[in-house]
Amino acid sequence: MTTITAFETSPDRGRGLARDMQVRWALEEVGQPYAVRLVSFKAMKEPAHRAVHPFAQIPTYEEGELALFESGAILLHIAERHGVILPKEIHARARAIMWMFAAVDTVKAPIIEREAAILIEREQSWFAERQVMLDSNVRRRLGELSARLGDREWLDGEFSIGDIMMIGLLRRLEGTALLEEYPNLIAYVARGAERPAFKRAFDAQFAVFADRQASG
Amino acid sequence: MTTITAFETSPDRGRGLARDMQVRWALEEVGQPYAVRLVSFKAMKEPAHRAVHPFAQIPTYEEGELALFESGAILLHIAERHGVILPKEIHARARAIMWMFAAVDTVKAPIIEREAAILIEREQSWFAERQVMLDSNVRRRLGELSARLGDREWLDGEFSIGDIMMIGLLRRLEGTALLEEYPNLIAYVARGAERPAFKRAFDAQFAVFADRQASG
Repeated sequence: MTTITAFETSPDRGRGLARDMQVRWALEEVGQPYAVRLVSFKAMKEPAHRAVHPFAQIPTYEEGELALFESGAILLHIAERHGVILPKEIHARARAIMWMFAAVDTVKAPIIEREAAILIEREQSWFAERQVMLDSNVRRRLGELSARLGDREWLDGEFSIGDIMMIGLLRRLEGTALLEEYPNLIAYVARGAERPAFKRAFDAQFAVFADRQASG
Repeated sequence: MTTITAFETSPDRGRGLARDMQVRWALEEVGQPYAVRLVSFKAMKEPAHRAVHPFAQIPTYEEGELALFESGAILLHIAERHGVILPKEIHARARAIMWMFAAVDTVKAPIIEREAAILIEREQSWFAERQVMLDSNVRRRLGELSARLGDREWLDGEFSIGDIMMIGLLRRLEGTALLEEYPNLIAYVARGAERPAFKRAFDAQFAVFADRQASG
């Protein structure tokens, strides 16, 4: 049995922006059933969770003796185990993995930094001035990504774990003026969100939020 | 033939902190000769380089028809092609890859954010106040990494591409009080730097700096 972890109370109010979404999406793409263990922010910092995730985050992935953290590593394991959403040809495979790294590092870094400033530094004297710089950093990466994507359907040939990671990342900017400057990125995100596996994953994570609302 | 790119003029003055260092190190570990194409900051932004690296950075990796960017993806490709520095057993392999992702995402994010602030925001009114917060973010991740490493030699069993990425990242903090708080992390970095392959990679990148000094 495969078990993943997710936030008991996601701060995104059911929008599917937490990183369990990408793991759920990949599991739905490969058709692998999974159980979800919900963890509170308090439980995440306790030894039992840290034994699986030393940095006290979600998601984690447990399958028999194997325990993984880092969504990129989890997606790669899922894809390799099931032989889908990752090209078999060695060069195309390396490029799909390359896009996963781009989505967790080069493109992600300025997006998360901007997001963290909005969450944590809103009351600081420097907030407005610094936000101009942070927006510009995000815009640069989106412009570069948009130029590379062009009118391609997916980042590199067939849909892959690289697209799951990149679309998951770009969804964090949905509704912002930043993303709206790049119609091909908006269309790319929309193509991802139309996939039946995405919808099943989204509904599953939304149900956690809805249950919480109903019981709260 | 394998060709990688590196900075023509590295801002680190030969300390081997640019990301070509990890690619050189991996190539030395597997015993693969390679050529280096040096690129200026100006050339990095031009179409010829962007065709290989859409985000205008180094390193890139070219091998016949294959062109990759993102050092994590490059290291994984090198390890798989040569069958070393990556365990063959499937669970151990997934964990080595997991540590690569940790080194380019979870542990790296606060380190790079702190570094960027020192480089870019030193003259800003908010610098000192914000630096306290950034130091604390780095310290938290180092504490968690230190706790997980304990008295292990490497992050997970045999030396792997996960260690190359993590040690390469931690070297950016060498000489800071932050890293000195964690003697096991300092010893871990030192073990990496004692490997003959590390030394060959370091010397090769240092020679680029020394040549530049001699000719300048």
